Amino acid sequence: MKFCSSCGHTIEVKVPPGDHLPRHTCPACGIIHYQNPRIIAGCLPVWEDRILICRRAIEPRHGFWTLPAGFMENNETVAQGAAREAQEEVLADVEIGSLLAVVNVLHTHQVHMMFRARLRNLDFGVGPESLEVKLVREHEIPWHELAFQSIHFSLQRFLEDRAAGQELLHMHTLP
Amino acid sequence: MKFCSSCGHTIEVKVPPGDHLPRHTCPACGIIHYQNPRIIAGCLPVWEDRILICRRAIEPRHGFWTLPAGFMENNETVAQGAAREAQEEVLADVEIGSLLAVVNVLHTHQVHMMFRARLRNLDFGVGPESLEVKLVREHEIPWHELAFQSIHFSLQRFLEDRAAGQELLHMHTLP
Repeated sequence: MKFCSSCGHTIEVKVPPGDHLPRHTCPACGIIHYQNPRIIAGCLPVWEDRILICRRAIEPRHGFWTLPAGFMENNETVAQGAAREAQEEVLADVEIGSLLAVVNVLHTHQVHMMFRARLRNLDFGVGPESLEVKLVREHEIPWHELAFQSIHFSLQRFLEDRAAGQELLHMHTLP
Repeated sequence: MKFCSSCGHTIEVKVPPGDHLPRHTCPACGIIHYQNPRIIAGCLPVWEDRILICRRAIEPRHGFWTLPAGFMENNETVAQGAAREAQEEVLADVEIGSLLAVVNVLHTHQVHMMFRARLRNLDFGVGPESLEVKLVREHEIPWHELAFQSIHFSLQRFLEDRAAGQELLHMHTLP
């Protein structure tokens, strides 16, 4: 951020009076442009004993496997964002279930919120941000070709919970 | 947003190719400035059977009662944000517990994430954003002078769970 998005003046980075962190501040109009973490909303869609995963057609981590997830938008709930991402990335109609994981990803300034989900039918497909979409059983999960640590964490906790017959919320932090 | 924060050019609002929503886009440098919901991190601090509440010294809802909560910052976890807000608003040292509530507040583009918390000691006090801070029993909660619906929801669910001897996560959406 170099220019004030409100008045166009050059931005200064300084600690405002009464604050404790440096902020992007406009010396002309006085506006403080706060920067805060963004929410990644996603889900783990299942059909019977299988999980729907997709291979990324975009950077970062092009070619690696993931679960449908993406930036939450204004004017939607976290669960609606998770369902929308499933629709966009794997063309799937899902019923969102319980919250599975909240993962703080510090270096990207993101909070990943992953829900359990149920596929309403088998009419899924390859969305524009995916190379490939498939249903996998536990032993077929490509653990060494997963795109992100938060996806690895979500899959692990989901499988442990399923084996134990429970649905817990799991919190985690990644540097 | 009127000006590009990257190059200073005047912003246009239009649907980028491949997208489905209007975005703040710079016709000069091509950057798309996405706008996403922000996380409000907060907690419900308890000491034995009492809950710590505070009266707001700032707008919005000046003079109304609330729980310590505020914008999550970059480079902290949601739980750390909740503990920091307790430190700042009620000068309290809290141990953050389980996640109590996730409330989508659509009209403010916020997601409120409220944790159960335990006061480590009774050395709390009135921070610069509070007028008054006090411990209340259930029958002393000022239900008709609460600042926000998400606070009302969090207090209600907390008390119900406590009576039932459980700690559930409660999801809710406000228009």
